[in-house]
Amino acid sequence: MEVLFATSNRHKFNEAKEILFNANVNILHFDFKHNEIRSDSLEEIAMEAATTAYKLAKKPVFVEDTGLFIDALNGFPGTYSAWAQKKIGNEGILKLMAGTANRSASFKTCIAFVNGKTKGEARTFTAECKGQISEKPRGNDGFGYDPVFIPEGEQHTFAENASFKNKHSHRYKSLLLLANHLATDD
Amino acid sequence: MEVLFATSNRHKFNEAKEILFNANVNILHFDFKHNEIRSDSLEEIAMEAATTAYKLAKKPVFVEDTGLFIDALNGFPGTYSAWAQKKIGNEGILKLMAGTANRSASFKTCIAFVNGKTKGEARTFTAECKGQISEKPRGNDGFGYDPVFIPEGEQHTFAENASFKNKHSHRYKSLLLLANHLATDD
Repeated sequence: MEVLFATSNRHKFNEAKEILFNANVNILHFDFKHNEIRSDSLEEIAMEAATTAYKLAKKPVFVEDTGLFIDALNGFPGTYSAWAQKKIGNEGILKLMAGTANRSASFKTCIAFVNGKTKGEARTFTAECKGQISEKPRGNDGFGYDPVFIPEGEQHTFAENASFKNKHSHRYKSLLLLANHLATDD
Repeated sequence: MEVLFATSNRHKFNEAKEILFNANVNILHFDFKHNEIRSDSLEEIAMEAATTAYKLAKKPVFVEDTGLFIDALNGFPGTYSAWAQKKIGNEGILKLMAGTANRSASFKTCIAFVNGKTKGEARTFTAECKGQISEKPRGNDGFGYDPVFIPEGEQHTFAENASFKNKHSHRYKSLLLLANHLATDD
């Protein structure tokens, strides 16, 4: 089966391609620049984007939206994570967390998929990876918040171990949910 | 002349009502909850919102969008200022600015007005107030970022002197531009 991944982020595409290849799904890149809606819900944002992408591509297509939700910051940067990363970076996140004992956070990914059969409606697959914000940025792999996020039960950040990231992350889990759906979708 | 101010923020409405009353413009509150578009441009956001408000109200209506743009933070929180205030507050802003020598920032307001005569097109009025981010929050008047913003050439924050705010602020200036336009609009 062949589906499009609509994203303007090459990092995300390459990561997804590798994961889905191992699940026997071949994806093609659909270069998609889209003005996402404002919402605190990943699901709402992803569903609207997937519906729009399907109208343009007219082929089975998915989008994903990921956010880092930090408990002590009321869920900041949340659904605005990509924007906040550009503006204040990991340095800003660590400044905001300075002196904060509760460092709990979670990465959440929502994939919205439109296959075109059911009136263009999107189906969503959401996964989460709980963890902690590190005291300092660590590691050179990955991108975005990877250097400051330590998944639950581990000592290393996502950026310190990319293979570990693919095996345990929110994005990996949501992509497997999608792959499983594609394998059984008729 | 009577126009509607579309906003869900009572603080903003009361502030505008006082300022425009002195310029002989009476405004009515149009309670307007709207999912703004994502953009780094206040003008784009305000124009889209005003156009939508006009479709609902079918009367001359304006909206305003204000953002605090901090130079050392690449313009953060910018067009997401209201959201960032809810999430990290002034405490978060001061943490992000800790140890930062360049404390320059500017408040910008864009008002978009639709009178319904010109195919529903919005006209915009933008004003700016340059200043500095304070080292600590000061004052109890005002709202939002007022306690941490010191306008250029002054020693006090907006929250320490509300009348001073109305006389010198970005929002005041943009409302006067609107009032001037209304006085000459035929």
